[in-house]
Amino acid sequence: MLPSDKAKNRYKIIIEYLGTGLCGWQRQDHALSVQQIIEEAIFSFTGEKVEVTAAGRTDAGVHALAQAAHFNIVAYKKPETIPVSINHFTRPHKVVITHCEQVANDFHARFSASARHYLYRIINRKAKTVMEEERAWWIRKELDIKAMREGASYLVGHHDFSSFRASYCQAKSPVKTLSLVEIKQEGEIINFYLSAPSFLHHMVRNIVGSLAQVGIGKWQPKDIKIALEAKKRHAGGVTAPAHGLYFLKVDY
Amino acid sequence: MLPSDKAKNRYKIIIEYLGTGLCGWQRQDHALSVQQIIEEAIFSFTGEKVEVTAAGRTDAGVHALAQAAHFNIVAYKKPETIPVSINHFTRPHKVVITHCEQVANDFHARFSASARHYLYRIINRKAKTVMEEERAWWIRKELDIKAMREGASYLVGHHDFSSFRASYCQAKSPVKTLSLVEIKQEGEIINFYLSAPSFLHHMVRNIVGSLAQVGIGKWQPKDIKIALEAKKRHAGGVTAPAHGLYFLKVDY
Repeated sequence: MLPSDKAKNRYKIIIEYLGTGLCGWQRQDHALSVQQIIEEAIFSFTGEKVEVTAAGRTDAGVHALAQAAHFNIVAYKKPETIPVSINHFTRPHKVVITHCEQVANDFHARFSASARHYLYRIINRKAKTVMEEERAWWIRKELDIKAMREGASYLVGHHDFSSFRASYCQAKSPVKTLSLVEIKQEGEIINFYLSAPSFLHHMVRNIVGSLAQVGIGKWQPKDIKIALEAKKRHAGGVTAPAHGLYFLKVDY
Repeated sequence: MLPSDKAKNRYKIIIEYLGTGLCGWQRQDHALSVQQIIEEAIFSFTGEKVEVTAAGRTDAGVHALAQAAHFNIVAYKKPETIPVSINHFTRPHKVVITHCEQVANDFHARFSASARHYLYRIINRKAKTVMEEERAWWIRKELDIKAMREGASYLVGHHDFSSFRASYCQAKSPVKTLSLVEIKQEGEIINFYLSAPSFLHHMVRNIVGSLAQVGIGKWQPKDIKIALEAKKRHAGGVTAPAHGLYFLKVDY
């Protein structure tokens, strides 16, 4: 902690956003990010330049139902007033603060997180979709749910996930503990729930893309095990599109 | 049936649309309707000017998950090829044909319907919403589901629904048979399911608006009964906004 942080108030916020048209969580020079929208909204109502740190840096087009983040401000604001104040200035962008609480100065949205939960949504039907456009991955061919569940079972646990890791992922180790992969069908929608203390870059999208190959019959369920054991990105399946992915929530 | 219809092929289509930004189902001179988008798409691939007749004429901003409609064309087209052909030309509008079948020439999307099913979605939470913007009615104050269910129970059955009818409704009689009002809570979302052989203009939105007044405690459940028995529009509650309403499906 920097000495200057001591005099500041730290707040944890929960954020919902529709990632469509945004460059993702992280600030970029030539595109609009969720981080920039929130930092500018906080500046607009406090006059303070802040850095907002998120639990997970989502990619362009990825959505969030309950992303968590923290920031420090010198001025004290009642936590329950902060969502309305920020939300006033995030308009017309599709970014909204749903909850806020004051936290200890050693709370860190990223490093204090004990588990992260993602949802990946597929719409599986012949006709294209308008209700789920940019909100789910449309797959025409009927998916075999049972085969995908069998494939997913090989991934749960403590493994080297190099085969499901973006080539430019910066994590020190490819070893992660996937605690949950659950596949639920609700009519035309297939929801994939994935949980882990932390994920590699593109790990959820690469896993779902590989499971979809099982679902359409291009891969056998056991091919997921073979891919995992190869520990090479080129052994893994395709990367599912960003617009089906939702950062669901974080545990602390 | 006109003699000229005999030589034509009649098709029934199922349509999904996001009503946002459209003037509703019915063609209008100075605004874009779902009907116009589909009729122009059919013309683009068949060269035939058709009139598409829907089961229910939805208002501006109202959505549909499975609206039904019929039209006649001289040329025979395989039913299974029609959705893809129409959908190619409805782009970029949020209107999509999900199913098509050839039907007898006496089938009528509106007059042959035996029951219509609507869904009305409320998002009930303090923070405004981005995921459900234009897709659900946002109500900040916590709704009392039990009280709304009690209020709804007075509406089921054969009644004069004048109190829940738009003043400019053109139906011959205000008497309708409401076969179902079901209220289901799923987290922050409250889904109202309403079914009847047919509805009056604004009937679903006026019922949901009135039930919401019960939900926030402004009305007692019994006030729904009092409103119903008054048989005057001004005795009914507010009209819930169009963007929470979905034409769910039609039975034939």
